[in-house]
Amino acid sequence: MSIKLALNSYGKNAVNLSKIIRHADYHEFRQITVNISLEGDFTTAYTEGDNTKILATDTQKNTIYALAKEHFTSSIEAFGIYLSDHFIANNPQVTKVTIDITEHGYTRMAFDGSLHPHAYIGNGPDKNTALIVQDKGNITVRSGVKDLLILKTTDSGFENFIRDEFTSLKETADRILATQCEASWLYTSNGQDFTACAAAVRNTLLKTFAFHNSLSVQQTLYAMGEAVLQEHSMIKEISLQMPNKHHIPFNLEQFGLFNKNDIFIATDEPYGLIQGTITR
Amino acid sequence: MSIKLALNSYGKNAVNLSKIIRHADYHEFRQITVNISLEGDFTTAYTEGDNTKILATDTQKNTIYALAKEHFTSSIEAFGIYLSDHFIANNPQVTKVTIDITEHGYTRMAFDGSLHPHAYIGNGPDKNTALIVQDKGNITVRSGVKDLLILKTTDSGFENFIRDEFTSLKETADRILATQCEASWLYTSNGQDFTACAAAVRNTLLKTFAFHNSLSVQQTLYAMGEAVLQEHSMIKEISLQMPNKHHIPFNLEQFGLFNKNDIFIATDEPYGLIQGTITR
Amino acid sequence: MSIKLALNSYGKNAVNLSKIIRHADYHEFRQITVNISLEGDFTTAYTEGDNTKILATDTQKNTIYALAKEHFTSSIEAFGIYLSDHFIANNPQVTKVTIDITEHGYTRMAFDGSLHPHAYIGNGPDKNTALIVQDKGNITVRSGVKDLLILKTTDSGFENFIRDEFTSLKETADRILATQCEASWLYTSNGQDFTACAAAVRNTLLKTFAFHNSLSVQQTLYAMGEAVLQEHSMIKEISLQMPNKHHIPFNLEQFGLFNKNDIFIATDEPYGLIQGTITR
Amino acid sequence: MSIKLALNSYGKNAVNLSKIIRHADYHEFRQITVNISLEGDFTTAYTEGDNTKILATDTQKNTIYALAKEHFTSSIEAFGIYLSDHFIANNPQVTKVTIDITEHGYTRMAFDGSLHPHAYIGNGPDKNTALIVQDKGNITVRSGVKDLLILKTTDSGFENFIRDEFTSLKETADRILATQCEASWLYTSNGQDFTACAAAVRNTLLKTFAFHNSLSVQQTLYAMGEAVLQEHSMIKEISLQMPNKHHIPFNLEQFGLFNKNDIFIATDEPYGLIQGTITR
Repeated sequence: MSIKLALNSYGKNAVNLSKIIRHADYHEFRQITVNISLEGDFTTAYTEGDNTKILATDTQKNTIYALAKEHFTSSIEAFGIYLSDHFIANNPQVTKVTIDITEHGYTRMAFDGSLHPHAYIGNGPDKNTALIVQDKGNITVRSGVKDLLILKTTDSGFENFIRDEFTSLKETADRILATQCEASWLYTSNGQDFTACAAAVRNTLLKTFAFHNSLSVQQTLYAMGEAVLQEHSMIKEISLQMPNKHHIPFNLEQFGLFNKNDIFIATDEPYGLIQGTITR
Repeated sequence: MSIKLALNSYGKNAVNLSKIIRHADYHEFRQITVNISLEGDFTTAYTEGDNTKILATDTQKNTIYALAKEHFTSSIEAFGIYLSDHFIANNPQVTKVTIDITEHGYTRMAFDGSLHPHAYIGNGPDKNTALIVQDKGNITVRSGVKDLLILKTTDSGFENFIRDEFTSLKETADRILATQCEASWLYTSNGQDFTACAAAVRNTLLKTFAFHNSLSVQQTLYAMGEAVLQEHSMIKEISLQMPNKHHIPFNLEQFGLFNKNDIFIATDEPYGLIQGTITR
Repeated sequence: MSIKLALNSYGKNAVNLSKIIRHADYHEFRQITVNISLEGDFTTAYTEGDNTKILATDTQKNTIYALAKEHFTSSIEAFGIYLSDHFIANNPQVTKVTIDITEHGYTRMAFDGSLHPHAYIGNGPDKNTALIVQDKGNITVRSGVKDLLILKTTDSGFENFIRDEFTSLKETADRILATQCEASWLYTSNGQDFTACAAAVRNTLLKTFAFHNSLSVQQTLYAMGEAVLQEHSMIKEISLQMPNKHHIPFNLEQFGLFNKNDIFIATDEPYGLIQGTITR
Repeated sequence: MSIKLALNSYGKNAVNLSKIIRHADYHEFRQITVNISLEGDFTTAYTEGDNTKILATDTQKNTIYALAKEHFTSSIEAFGIYLSDHFIANNPQVTKVTIDITEHGYTRMAFDGSLHPHAYIGNGPDKNTALIVQDKGNITVRSGVKDLLILKTTDSGFENFIRDEFTSLKETADRILATQCEASWLYTSNGQDFTACAAAVRNTLLKTFAFHNSLSVQQTLYAMGEAVLQEHSMIKEISLQMPNKHHIPFNLEQFGLFNKNDIFIATDEPYGLIQGTITR
């Protein structure tokens, strides 16, 4: 039985680029991290060390900086699409390009109600993301947000779950619900104002999280995804990942005190991880 | 020549605590990380394994949770002072207590201009800090901020530095100045509204950074510290640490393009680190 | 058009467990991190908040500790299979279980040529991994290694790659090749001595890396995978991921010195990432 | 009351350098991270933006690479001393130089009992360190080790500690003792073979940890430091930092099982931190 290459991909990761766009009355500052991955007719590169079809990852990096000069002027999605088109158009051996961009958000400083023209403060921890996949002529764009740390102090419970021989968790009708949400959504077409759309989706996610009476993380996750599809007709699918950032009531009773559901241990590990994809 | 214990300290680190304070019309959510360190008459613990004077680090942790119930109600500084007093009052063998608290900031979500009563979004990356040191009856309080990511796209240069045999850096009158600032300041007395004071100092730091015409990171650091001392009479000393988050112009000229000081490589390593302490 | 749940999974991550197995003449120490993920008939949990089919992630965690008592006695693969069988057997609503285990390696200390009976030193950075997926009666086991930091100072070049308008990388016949390799392989059946097999595969990977005359990371990756399939008949597929840990010659010539390919800048970002799957 | 600069320092951190030293029959590979900090007559740089005495941190970085060419040939301590002397000799405005070097260890791969001439595997997690401080003509050298992950499964207890109102920890005569030790020691003079000395000290630390019957982390820490001073006459002081990497017995009894001190939760946070300095 012969041995063969079944899958391959290569590219440059963690290309950190910043740009100043000088407007008439202020400087716009942008900072992004770009990952590129190429797939295609690269079998002889792997099996024989034939580099003649290899676009060096260093060249990929250079291309990002060079094209950013003229073409990174609006959304990360638009820049990702431009990059993807460039690699496909110039490299016939490439059949699939994946461009993954994370934007590091900065906000103009404001003093006495007016925005400073060129001083910024980094915000976060949440970051906008774009994932562009171009495969045999078909291009898909996913926008997203990650590290969105959201929390509610009530309107969240977890009851009626299975009790087996290894169950010790108490049922609760009132707990903290906290997560570092990651979401990405797929558009029905690629002509949107991606930046405005991402802001609107983010708002829908926050609002649904805030007002949902949560019976479980699963239910809240679904409600958030469902609301995004209901409110945003240009989105056909959304995936959400919600690690449960546990806040566990501390046992004050052992010291003769009463924990009125107000003092908690915040833990990072272990953590529940809930995921779902909601479609039309 | 005899061998002896010259210095010792021990304590509990990374005690992660969250608290809900239920007000009439909304829930206040707070999350902190506390480090405790004790010094004192512990020589026989080290040299002989005599634990009779050892307050277990597990007990220190429990104490933080237990005392937070009644006494973590306002600033992290006030809670730190209470903790410090508790350990000193109850442990005659302890001569020095260090309490280091970092607050993880959360902001109430707002929809249509009104604040939600119990939904929060984590903010950052900057975090407020408090450092309380109680030593032989003397207590000092330092407030601070860390991970304050600030950046300006102009009004910053670096020229006229030494050119020796290993110097290759070009002089520039216009560069990006970016840093992840950490600052902590010492009060002349401990009766302030620490929370209000920290917010005011943060504003002074931001404003000075934004409006300063920077000839170097050193100069901007000093200007920021000087402004804090000038504007806040209750502060007698401030220490600042400003790593230089370099944004290096990318060489577009090699590709026949012109970098009009607009396309940069953002690097994490290596990085310049500038520190200073400014006093009255 | 109706909105529906397309994919779902949930489980507990980062369950950190250690175990002492007391043998007659020494203590065996093991430390692992386990991630569990369940999929199945959970639609109403998401859409309605019906928790009656939910095995709480806290219970999943407890189950790992409880079953480790009797059943974590040999390889991480065998323990993973046992866990997977347990969840499938006891939860008819679950159709798919994924168990992902990373072992943190420790080596018994040795003094004067003899092993200490109960003192260990952590080794690394490489760690063994096991991935068990049980899906509708079918179980697959992948063993692996991650964070395997390997490097060669010669017998590595990169030439004859595409030179386009954005290419600046020089060709080289002699460079450092360094990577933090991650590999995982699939067995033809599940009756092996997994621990012995993983050690043998690791050795094949190292030996091939060391003796291969590398024309590219791609070629070395393929050679490593091919050698594993050639030498280990019980393996039917292997996936490798090799980030290029760049060591870039420092420009000493600017200071009148000659870099005889001996002084390098070691960089983490950006980095090339090469991936491939090799099958029979 | 005038405002003034009380303390200042600046320098370059995280300078990552690798070097190949080509011996007749094999290649020696070294990788280090260097931090430099300078103090001196820099007041006007801070207060006025006068850069004429500033040796740019970029120049400091270049100097490390340039001097490594001829002068990084043996221990990190010797290279650190050379760097320190260089900065002092060439910069009269500098009164104090701190050079902090961490070495990332690599081991030559061995196959069938013989060492490969140019293939390496990264080891760890422990790393050797050197700290050179030159201050007004006086130079001190500290060697050290960090991230030394050591563990013993028995011969460790913790009893007879204070029981106050907030104590819940049970006494135990048999527990896991685990730590990620960091140690650094000061020499009586600077003419040693630093590399051999560091290896010997490391061995003393490991052996003492392994054979010590521990009544507390404090006692073990002291015993380790004491042994180093007893066995190594060229060392006059050692500082140790030992975070307690807790392994907490999991409550199996709640499930009708018996935890015979064999199943543990390994936790990272919170953690006890024990520190001490032992001198002659």
